Amino acid sequence: MIVVMKPGATKDQVRHVVGLVREFGLKEHIIEGTDRTVVACIGDKRMVEKDAIENAPMVERIVPILAPYKMASLEVRQSRSVFEIGPQRFPLGAARVGVIAGPCSVESRDQILRTAEAVKESGCIGLRGGAFKPRTSPYAFQGLGSKGLAILAEAREKTGLAIVTEVIGLEQLDEVAEVSDVLQIGARNMQHYPLLEAVGKVRKPVLLKRGMSARLDEFLLAAEYIINAGNNQVILCERGIRTFEEYCRNTLCLTAVPALNEMTHLPVVVDPSHGTGHAHFVPPLCRAAVAAGADGLILECHPDPEHASSDGAQSVTPAVLSDLMNQLHRVARAIDRDL
Amino acid sequence: MIVVMKPGATKDQVRHVVGLVREFGLKEHIIEGTDRTVVACIGDKRMVEKDAIENAPMVERIVPILAPYKMASLEVRQSRSVFEIGPQRFPLGAARVGVIAGPCSVESRDQILRTAEAVKESGCIGLRGGAFKPRTSPYAFQGLGSKGLAILAEAREKTGLAIVTEVIGLEQLDEVAEVSDVLQIGARNMQHYPLLEAVGKVRKPVLLKRGMSARLDEFLLAAEYIINAGNNQVILCERGIRTFEEYCRNTLCLTAVPALNEMTHLPVVVDPSHGTGHAHFVPPLCRAAVAAGADGLILECHPDPEHASSDGAQSVTPAVLSDLMNQLHRVARAIDRDL
Amino acid sequence: MIVVMKPGATKDQVRHVVGLVREFGLKEHIIEGTDRTVVACIGDKRMVEKDAIENAPMVERIVPILAPYKMASLEVRQSRSVFEIGPQRFPLGAARVGVIAGPCSVESRDQILRTAEAVKESGCIGLRGGAFKPRTSPYAFQGLGSKGLAILAEAREKTGLAIVTEVIGLEQLDEVAEVSDVLQIGARNMQHYPLLEAVGKVRKPVLLKRGMSARLDEFLLAAEYIINAGNNQVILCERGIRTFEEYCRNTLCLTAVPALNEMTHLPVVVDPSHGTGHAHFVPPLCRAAVAAGADGLILECHPDPEHASSDGAQSVTPAVLSDLMNQLHRVARAIDRDL
Amino acid sequence: MIVVMKPGATKDQVRHVVGLVREFGLKEHIIEGTDRTVVACIGDKRMVEKDAIENAPMVERIVPILAPYKMASLEVRQSRSVFEIGPQRFPLGAARVGVIAGPCSVESRDQILRTAEAVKESGCIGLRGGAFKPRTSPYAFQGLGSKGLAILAEAREKTGLAIVTEVIGLEQLDEVAEVSDVLQIGARNMQHYPLLEAVGKVRKPVLLKRGMSARLDEFLLAAEYIINAGNNQVILCERGIRTFEEYCRNTLCLTAVPALNEMTHLPVVVDPSHGTGHAHFVPPLCRAAVAAGADGLILECHPDPEHASSDGAQSVTPAVLSDLMNQLHRVARAIDRDL
Repeated sequence: MIVVMKPGATKDQVRHVVGLVREFGLKEHIIEGTDRTVVACIGDKRMVEKDAIENAPMVERIVPILAPYKMASLEVRQSRSVFEIGPQRFPLGAARVGVIAGPCSVESRDQILRTAEAVKESGCIGLRGGAFKPRTSPYAFQGLGSKGLAILAEAREKTGLAIVTEVIGLEQLDEVAEVSDVLQIGARNMQHYPLLEAVGKVRKPVLLKRGMSARLDEFLLAAEYIINAGNNQVILCERGIRTFEEYCRNTLCLTAVPALNEMTHLPVVVDPSHGTGHAHFVPPLCRAAVAAGADGLILECHPDPEHASSDGAQSVTPAVLSDLMNQLHRVARAIDRDL
Repeated sequence: MIVVMKPGATKDQVRHVVGLVREFGLKEHIIEGTDRTVVACIGDKRMVEKDAIENAPMVERIVPILAPYKMASLEVRQSRSVFEIGPQRFPLGAARVGVIAGPCSVESRDQILRTAEAVKESGCIGLRGGAFKPRTSPYAFQGLGSKGLAILAEAREKTGLAIVTEVIGLEQLDEVAEVSDVLQIGARNMQHYPLLEAVGKVRKPVLLKRGMSARLDEFLLAAEYIINAGNNQVILCERGIRTFEEYCRNTLCLTAVPALNEMTHLPVVVDPSHGTGHAHFVPPLCRAAVAAGADGLILECHPDPEHASSDGAQSVTPAVLSDLMNQLHRVARAIDRDL
Repeated sequence: MIVVMKPGATKDQVRHVVGLVREFGLKEHIIEGTDRTVVACIGDKRMVEKDAIENAPMVERIVPILAPYKMASLEVRQSRSVFEIGPQRFPLGAARVGVIAGPCSVESRDQILRTAEAVKESGCIGLRGGAFKPRTSPYAFQGLGSKGLAILAEAREKTGLAIVTEVIGLEQLDEVAEVSDVLQIGARNMQHYPLLEAVGKVRKPVLLKRGMSARLDEFLLAAEYIINAGNNQVILCERGIRTFEEYCRNTLCLTAVPALNEMTHLPVVVDPSHGTGHAHFVPPLCRAAVAAGADGLILECHPDPEHASSDGAQSVTPAVLSDLMNQLHRVARAIDRDL
Repeated sequence: MIVVMKPGATKDQVRHVVGLVREFGLKEHIIEGTDRTVVACIGDKRMVEKDAIENAPMVERIVPILAPYKMASLEVRQSRSVFEIGPQRFPLGAARVGVIAGPCSVESRDQILRTAEAVKESGCIGLRGGAFKPRTSPYAFQGLGSKGLAILAEAREKTGLAIVTEVIGLEQLDEVAEVSDVLQIGARNMQHYPLLEAVGKVRKPVLLKRGMSARLDEFLLAAEYIINAGNNQVILCERGIRTFEEYCRNTLCLTAVPALNEMTHLPVVVDPSHGTGHAHFVPPLCRAAVAAGADGLILECHPDPEHASSDGAQSVTPAVLSDLMNQLHRVARAIDRDL
């Protein structure tokens, strides 16, 4: 941490700051520049409330130097994490790119079994589908709940696909954890800390979606909550951020892929369905995500999008998915990976 | 809802859309313009998944006409809601502006009692303070929990101030609801639906903070969850949104005050501490919020901000608060309100 | 400037960075922390291309310490700047708040003279109105040009109001500078550097609007261009930034008022018409801007907004303006200023 | 255009709106819904100031239906535009992807000739390089001007590469147009209308960069200015938008590629250098842009980035460029295009 003093700060004011720095167990290093004095603080106390020093007289600002997360960082673990997903133990985070597809919501047994069949056929490794749904409106379809979980379990049995479904609260955690191969934490719950701690106690991979306005530091701190609670199998999912753009539901930020690869050892997947909001944008952005180096994709696929109970506008049909998987194969091989 | 067809859509394609519209129980009205056909849909089915129609061939886009919330809207209730707050039954939403102040976290009995005394003295109506804290980092101070609640209860007894404290999960709800006069839902939990439904069953006012990237529609849909579950005492709190600006923690959007007054009957309060992130910006933005027509303010005040366990940088001292309350008095009277 | 090395940087890599630092004429100061080495660089060379050092091996990032602008900063000039505006020499930047009002575009002699009369009557100090208009669409009304300038000059003669009109290119500068008391640089031109340099050679105050996505540093660097070219009479205008919000044309950021007051000696005015985009939001945001400490306001007023050639949606009527000025009087006095 | 009335609007108020609609030469179509009345307006008058109707009593909002641009749209021209670039007449917008590379600024004859050689060698079609530079700070390197143009011309002669250089004002237009094969309009000048009109009179392709906070509609309206002035050879360039993200200079929005392909017939290129701001992010985002369907790329390349006069942090070396071109070749072929 660097404390930048305002021009004109007196020796006493600098001394007062030094006192605060020492209270935090840090060692100071005073540098007198041509215009102002800065106090560099040495020692790894990432989490103390250093911002409070901003209140000291004549302090201009505080510049953090260390990243606030630790166990998610490449400093602690240099080799990339690889996690085994589902009954087939697909190694996510290694050379092959894993694709997970399925409807936004579990609507019926028939819908899921038909979709699962098509998803399997096209070469995907997992089936997504929400049994418990967090919906922006209280009047919207809220999901089939436990019944939906049973349908997903049946689909896995029939296809061998890994099941990826969301857990929206502590109440459903045990039930979901029993069925799901990967526990999904939705974007709205990225900073729901009691839930992060709870999935940190489960022995299953967690797919953590980036909050719609989360900076990467905050995203990795959410991952840190899970790892800190005991579960190091965190898969990061970029799914678009909120910006001023109107032609897409969110702005998918593919620079996050190489950026996260620089910051953390955790695998990174991309969700172009939520990241764009429109089915016709999903194939080109899936190709782009793979070309940018994503370890996996998660996308929405529905046998009859015009009648989907949720997210119809951004779901591709099984036919589009199948064609897309062929394209992705070629793109993956162009960058020396595979699907 | 208006369905805009692409130029060149055939009669059959329009007929297909009309079929979907009727499936949703809506009546269509076809308008053939010079360049394209639009299908206006009549009937109040706010919550059906109309976006799915976007997938129909040659549909360009869907334009919603009705606001998606209902009970929070001025259409359902024209007169402004006024809620009684705390032991003194302060009428929030009426002529007087209510100010709530206190530290970010409850740190000790002494800290709270000293702060409460000062807050009371300066003319505030409520004391804020977190017992259970949602923190961005797992390594940060997480609050005193139940012990903190007891301290807050003691402060109320001593001062008559209303207690405003956050509930971060279903687990703590009963405990918090027993002590707190107002249940605060934090910005990160604005779309934590199980929690919204749970506070909807409590008979106490809820202070709902706007999510950091929530549009006003989404903010009012979160309020709608609470009202729909049975509790119509929702107080809306603007606390800044995330933008590209760097000199402030969030961008406080005071246009939200008159905008919400046009959209809803619920009272609106403003939080300039989180809305700016720096103690020196809090007084001018408090004055501005009152001048813009806010029904109340909630701000952070700490007897020793340099040593606060959280949010020190944005907490004012009791002396600043006292001076500020005098200014706010004058501003309120300038717009024919009072403090 | 601080150069933060990645963990594991070798002595040689640090030495290489020190070499680059010295090439820039800066002195280095190496600090070895527990996790990483940082190189603090001393010497005021604000403008060298220090970011290039980011390319050196094992450099993590560059943290600037000094603000990039100089003459606009409080370090160079501690007392607030006050500029005399118009024939009445209104001192903008001092105790009284100056309000400038008028239509978006000059449409006709009658429109301007009627508006000017009303604007004068209500207590404003200036008349705004565009003769040359920068329009988002090539098909929109582009202004009356020179004829419009003549009408504005006549309005000044009749009322004594200061004329504030925009200059959109070097071609019109001489003509506009002859008539206008204040040269307005629009938000879209905030980084049109040849124009900034050109108005820097004129001896009239310049009202510089903040670009719609400009950070405050960039805003002050645009002011620096004008001051550096010889004209220190720059008035800064906050007019809203682009965010994800949809109910307002822009997000008016009133925190910019106290923030700019901390960073610069230049006066700050606020434009709630562009800052909100809707006439009904203009009065509350004008009040808020004054309460936040703005030195002035600039707003749109049209005798018949339903038929305005541009910006009708955000223009208030003369009757609303007159009522608003009474309110602003009271708010200004509540914070010990006047109108 | 659809005019949405507030609930409770009287017949007279609707009639008043109808009067305004007719004044604009449009035909109305009144639809009485369950909750509110809407007035659909028929007739293609894209550019009238319809927003002014928002001021009429009891109007809630105006919903535009037609896109505001015309000649840039797919409605006017259905087949994709292909423009010939440079002495080799590379067909941009067709099957092959064209890559343009070079330094941010022309710094010296030696720097440019060395870079041009490498750029040519690696298979690029054009050389970028700024002779006149728009710089955020008045103290930064402003370019070599005319001398720089002469160096670029020499590089073209030696290599056959197309020259792409920026024009920052009307003053330099003739000079730049004489040398440059493609006239670049920078992001800061996207709404500098006199300049757009001026390049609209030149018979050379224009590379128009998207403004940092421009919506796609505004971007296409800027293109419309150029086409409307007589030059239909407009190449659109996505170069990142400003968001809250901090790890990248801008947020590169690759969804813009398929979105623009849906909206317009103009070719789309991507600039991952400005779009990310860091050299190490440029290769993955170049690959992603090609996979998303971009017609071309423009990126910064410098023989010695540590000593570049501008944009050093985001410039790749010739060695990285050469390796990248090999990767891009493979990605292009994976989607049935070529380099």
